[in-house]
Amino acid sequence: MIIFSERVNGMYRDVRKAINEKDERIVQDLVREQVAGGADVMDINLGPTKGDPVENFVWLAQTVHAATDRPLSLDSAKPHVLVAAMPRVRAALPDTKLIINSSTAAPEAMGQLIPVAAEQGAGIIGLTMDQEGVPGNVEKRVECGATFLMTAMESGITPEDIYLDPIILPVNVAQKQPANVMEAIRQLAIVSDPPPHFILGLSNVSQQCLMRNLLNRTYLVMSIAAGLDAAIMDAADKELVEAAISAEVLLDKQLYSDDYLKAWRMQKGLH
Amino acid sequence: MIIFSERVNGMYRDVRKAINEKDERIVQDLVREQVAGGADVMDINLGPTKGDPVENFVWLAQTVHAATDRPLSLDSAKPHVLVAAMPRVRAALPDTKLIINSSTAAPEAMGQLIPVAAEQGAGIIGLTMDQEGVPGNVEKRVECGATFLMTAMESGITPEDIYLDPIILPVNVAQKQPANVMEAIRQLAIVSDPPPHFILGLSNVSQQCLMRNLLNRTYLVMSIAAGLDAAIMDAADKELVEAAISAEVLLDKQLYSDDYLKAWRMQKGLH
Repeated sequence: MIIFSERVNGMYRDVRKAINEKDERIVQDLVREQVAGGADVMDINLGPTKGDPVENFVWLAQTVHAATDRPLSLDSAKPHVLVAAMPRVRAALPDTKLIINSSTAAPEAMGQLIPVAAEQGAGIIGLTMDQEGVPGNVEKRVECGATFLMTAMESGITPEDIYLDPIILPVNVAQKQPANVMEAIRQLAIVSDPPPHFILGLSNVSQQCLMRNLLNRTYLVMSIAAGLDAAIMDAADKELVEAAISAEVLLDKQLYSDDYLKAWRMQKGLH
Repeated sequence: MIIFSERVNGMYRDVRKAINEKDERIVQDLVREQVAGGADVMDINLGPTKGDPVENFVWLAQTVHAATDRPLSLDSAKPHVLVAAMPRVRAALPDTKLIINSSTAAPEAMGQLIPVAAEQGAGIIGLTMDQEGVPGNVEKRVECGATFLMTAMESGITPEDIYLDPIILPVNVAQKQPANVMEAIRQLAIVSDPPPHFILGLSNVSQQCLMRNLLNRTYLVMSIAAGLDAAIMDAADKELVEAAISAEVLLDKQLYSDDYLKAWRMQKGLH
């Protein structure tokens, strides 16, 4: 399970304020908490912050990196921001693994972002949607996912560096989509061997819901059984992380031992 | 989700003592707790109790029935005990739905138990194993499950009354089996339309494990996504029940509402 921390995101008020005021301490405290909880990758998203987004990305990447040497995932819905920010962050942090989050399968987005990932040796997340928006069915998700996968591989990116994100929508507005997303993962998992990674922005499933943690945890477990091996999630949610590790033990992807949670933490060098 | 209460089982010391001493109060307190937690069916198992098993079954069935009118599942690994007990329990409780737990797919067991179920209008649980024991792979489980399903249907039992149990083994001794069991459910779900029910003796997955509740909960959620719609489980484990309901909401099998747990309880007439 590759845990992408969702927490350094300007959508959260504390992070937004920290970015606007260039307050390193707030960001770095969060980073340490996420890494201690088991985060493998720090996703960084500016959200609705002030100032130049490229400068903000460089500052945020350097600030996060000062607290951890984990890979960084640059998260923005604006391809031109990612295209401009990637070489700047690369220059500032020459040895840090970077991941682009995200491209869609629309030709324009792929044409801008896949070459950057290939050039920089970065990972890239591909949303299974195109210029027409988020598919309501399984078939279109699979089609977009396969298109993105093939296009990225043709540019020399290996499956190891490709993350397909089948886009989970809130269960309270689209109750058929959680099952569709899992079915899309199952179908896309057999398109390529080795398969790419599968990732979700987990907390979207419970947007505006009352039982957020319970829904996140339940959906994460089900999705891991369907083939999910990465998630953008709150690594400080202990019950969520423990559910994910338990799912992997039950699927024989982590060795069972009586204290398998402790074993998992030791493997990762956590206390 | 059809919740079979696992708790009235002579393997538990308190229940064993209650059966041996014919102490109705202990059993009925447990029954009320299980029903309040959401049990739909009361599984009753004598375990290693003293005295005549048929008389004990009649006493236990009547004792449980005095506290709830939920269906009763007579649980024994000995076909001859079930064959003898079923008509006696039926005579004592003429209006209570009964379920036989369980037959295997071995010709001898099916030959004894399926006719009893057909005759009594009872449900029947079929383990996906035969005289050779519990299969180590998916294929044999599917073969045994299909054999049991066909044999039961040929005797006039409808899929609605047939429960296939693909036999979950403890994850600490057979770590590949939890995934095999789920794959067997997925494959058996398409053998008949409408499909039978799928059930597991859930707590077996965590026998002798340290993190029992977490493993039970995680495996239940994953199995529901694979097609499980019934489980023999502890209905008083609130987190377990809430995880199951959440899984069904995420699979669009329970209508979403903000307080879907409360809605589920109200639907069942619970407070």
